[in-house]
Amino acid sequence: MPRPPRPGEKPFSASLPGFEDAGLIFIGRLRSPFATRDDCPKNRRAALEAGAAGRLEVDRPFREALVGLLPGDHVFCLSWLDGAARDLALQKPRHAETARGTFSLRSPVRPNPIGLHLVRIEALDIEAGLVSIDAIDVVDGTPLLDIKPYHGSVDRPQEG
Amino acid sequence: MPRPPRPGEKPFSASLPGFEDAGLIFIGRLRSPFATRDDCPKNRRAALEAGAAGRLEVDRPFREALVGLLPGDHVFCLSWLDGAARDLALQKPRHAETARGTFSLRSPVRPNPIGLHLVRIEALDIEAGLVSIDAIDVVDGTPLLDIKPYHGSVDRPQEG
Repeated sequence: MPRPPRPGEKPFSASLPGFEDAGLIFIGRLRSPFATRDDCPKNRRAALEAGAAGRLEVDRPFREALVGLLPGDHVFCLSWLDGAARDLALQKPRHAETARGTFSLRSPVRPNPIGLHLVRIEALDIEAGLVSIDAIDVVDGTPLLDIKPYHGSVDRPQEG
Repeated sequence: MPRPPRPGEKPFSASLPGFEDAGLIFIGRLRSPFATRDDCPKNRRAALEAGAAGRLEVDRPFREALVGLLPGDHVFCLSWLDGAARDLALQKPRHAETARGTFSLRSPVRPNPIGLHLVRIEALDIEAGLVSIDAIDVVDGTPLLDIKPYHGSVDRPQEG
């Protein structure tokens, strides 16, 4: 459910076309201890501090695609933040002084509300489609779009 | 255009539902020096080595959402890899010995072909919707879905 706008927030200036440029398929769900957005930790670090372990439930047709992943691996999960509004160009985080552009924030409110979550795999049962993960910061039942292995050689800035 | 299957590759075992669980909107395009998939570097590291700088072209309605980003910032770009097949559960990278599960690979072939690209912003012209980036590994004209600021505190594994 979209929240009411905060002072300084601003919707996109043109009316947006329909959300029909491409179609997504949900491959499963993210399970977490959090029933509502207000319950969720702010990010991965807060989820780790809160001990907010979670689980991926991968739907049957997609389970074999987990082969090759192992406990201890870090992966990026992409989620569909289906409760989020999509219409804000500028938005004001709860504790921020001023509104900022949506693409400079990690807020779930964005034209395509895709969540990006780094997690560590704790255990896998490929046949059952269950992947235990160390920490998660989304609402229980959030649709899962993709799982990608993390590679330090391409996924973090070069030092120095 | 999907490539022909390689030995050991395998499609998803069930017929997939339509790709209609959610809809995406393209917010712009990624510009690169690469006309075809075969021309593209394998990943960010190879793109940096090849000097494959690129550019984001953000469509007018979404430009104000760039406010707050600065040259030198690292961001994740999400792209829609629209030339990629979506039907493989197991696939065999060109130089691999055996086929592996799609979710253990960074191949563009996946149920939702969303590309994840870490880039550094070199220059921005928000009014024109142009963002110069240090390196990119996708075909010129690839649709852009999202831009997210990189935060080392949540986007990389903790050391030790």
